[in-house]
Amino acid sequence: MSDSLQTWAERIFAGDRRAIARAISAVESGEAAGNSLLKSLFPKSGSAYVIGVTGSPGAGKSTLVEKLAGEYRRRGLRVGIIAVDPTSPFSGGAILGDRIRMQALSTDGGTYIRSMATRGHLGGLASATHDVVTILDAAGCQVVLIETVGVGQDEVDIARHADVTVLLLVPGMGDDVQTFKAGVMEIADLYVINKADRPGADRAEQEVTAMLSLAARRDGWQPLVLKTVATTGEGVVSLRDALEQFRVFGEQQALRRERQRAQCRAWLLELLRQTLFENAVGALPGGMIEARVEDVLAHRRDPYSVVEEMVEDFRQARGKGSKRTP
Amino acid sequence: MSDSLQTWAERIFAGDRRAIARAISAVESGEAAGNSLLKSLFPKSGSAYVIGVTGSPGAGKSTLVEKLAGEYRRRGLRVGIIAVDPTSPFSGGAILGDRIRMQALSTDGGTYIRSMATRGHLGGLASATHDVVTILDAAGCQVVLIETVGVGQDEVDIARHADVTVLLLVPGMGDDVQTFKAGVMEIADLYVINKADRPGADRAEQEVTAMLSLAARRDGWQPLVLKTVATTGEGVVSLRDALEQFRVFGEQQALRRERQRAQCRAWLLELLRQTLFENAVGALPGGMIEARVEDVLAHRRDPYSVVEEMVEDFRQARGKGSKRTP
Repeated sequence: MSDSLQTWAERIFAGDRRAIARAISAVESGEAAGNSLLKSLFPKSGSAYVIGVTGSPGAGKSTLVEKLAGEYRRRGLRVGIIAVDPTSPFSGGAILGDRIRMQALSTDGGTYIRSMATRGHLGGLASATHDVVTILDAAGCQVVLIETVGVGQDEVDIARHADVTVLLLVPGMGDDVQTFKAGVMEIADLYVINKADRPGADRAEQEVTAMLSLAARRDGWQPLVLKTVATTGEGVVSLRDALEQFRVFGEQQALRRERQRAQCRAWLLELLRQTLFENAVGALPGGMIEARVEDVLAHRRDPYSVVEEMVEDFRQARGKGSKRTP
Repeated sequence: MSDSLQTWAERIFAGDRRAIARAISAVESGEAAGNSLLKSLFPKSGSAYVIGVTGSPGAGKSTLVEKLAGEYRRRGLRVGIIAVDPTSPFSGGAILGDRIRMQALSTDGGTYIRSMATRGHLGGLASATHDVVTILDAAGCQVVLIETVGVGQDEVDIARHADVTVLLLVPGMGDDVQTFKAGVMEIADLYVINKADRPGADRAEQEVTAMLSLAARRDGWQPLVLKTVATTGEGVVSLRDALEQFRVFGEQQALRRERQRAQCRAWLLELLRQTLFENAVGALPGGMIEARVEDVLAHRRDPYSVVEEMVEDFRQARGKGSKRTP
């Protein structure tokens, strides 16, 4: 490892905000340095409690994440927040009030907020999110909160690969019940009825509890159903307690190891998928993709043969243009 | 091309339902035969009008898609329906009534319904959806309706790559406005306020119209806002008319070609991503992924170095185990 890389890594271990920001930018833009850095950060990662918070747009995820972060901060923990939700105020869907409110957190030295709203043209949101978790974890964040919209497959995948998944629901949303039917909601370890001061909160709680009672989990965990009012902070302490309860439960479980193994496998495969793709696009001759696009548009060639040719070209162009491989 | 492949392709061109079903299964499971078949189908594809219908769970997408399909059927067109929405009754989130209702369509010889609710363990939902469009298009479907949940990035991508994108909203859903703010809704060419017999439909229409008036589109199209009651079929004829209006508009536009080029580029890149990944997983020695998962779990090795090694192994293991490359 070069001296400057070593220095950079050490600044991150010390929690230096500018070094962290630079690291995330390097990873997001696919710089080779970002990859080298991640290798040196990885051994110091693995101790953060990664909390996935998911739910429909408008369920109040950002507000709850903010309050939960504040709760952990009050107990002296360092907190990272990653928003991978295009509707989150953290990540660009903000109205001014949200932004101002958030600044209380972002200027607090013990909280690091990063949005991942936009994917680059090469995609890879899930693998980029994992990389950012590694950076924040190595930087000493004991808790990393990931906020995602809970409907798309990408977003569900990201939430599922947290240590614990919290699903936010709001009273009176028929669509949530429909989502439930589809099994999307089975991913969660904790269910939170947010905006619980609205009519229908008790009924929503009963419905969720009833549905959860239909199926026993393999690991023996009985998912908890909680009520919160994120805007006032009501119920946030109980949510933190429930999160800690799940953590303690997980540590005693052999099945916990199995979940971690499945998560690790999914991560490796996602990283493989993204690395192959970035390397291949980097190795293809300039203008080749555009030329092939014209061929397919004109129906001169079929896309399947064109892609086979690109894969062959990549495998023959050994060691050239690969970003991840130094 | 082998004789049997030629026969298979010809049966698809003739609209044979069993041949179509077999083709889709072959493509979904990543069989080499599926890929060879797609190459011979591609030249006969490209004439279907591909309509993406997206919106939140519970917005009534499946019902509207069913009614719209019926409307096109009445005019003698052949229709394909692809549901890539985990909450859709087409694709598994069904209650019994929905299933029975759907059967009216599925036993009609001129309609082909296929769900893509589950991704295989190797992923690739977007590229698989594209492949199914190619099959249905080559099989003579003049209209292909794709139903997706409109929140996740994957799903939005799929909808965006249709010839026309319809976004369904329902009155009184605050979350839709939030989605609007985030720019997710900018993708649509037509906006439909469904369940327009509910209170607030006029207000929703006004809000959407007001937001749309804030930005002019590069192609000069002024997105239309329509109201429907999908359960009764109200407004479905107007929706079909609007879809045809957009189609005629598009044919006159130079910018239309630019959109097709961008879509074609995105498709090629997605196909490249998926093919590389499937080939690499197929080429890696058995048990290698599991062994590396254990290394990373135990923090013996970092995932970044492990993946670089896998990429190198793939590039050296030339021609072995690749599924897409014959």
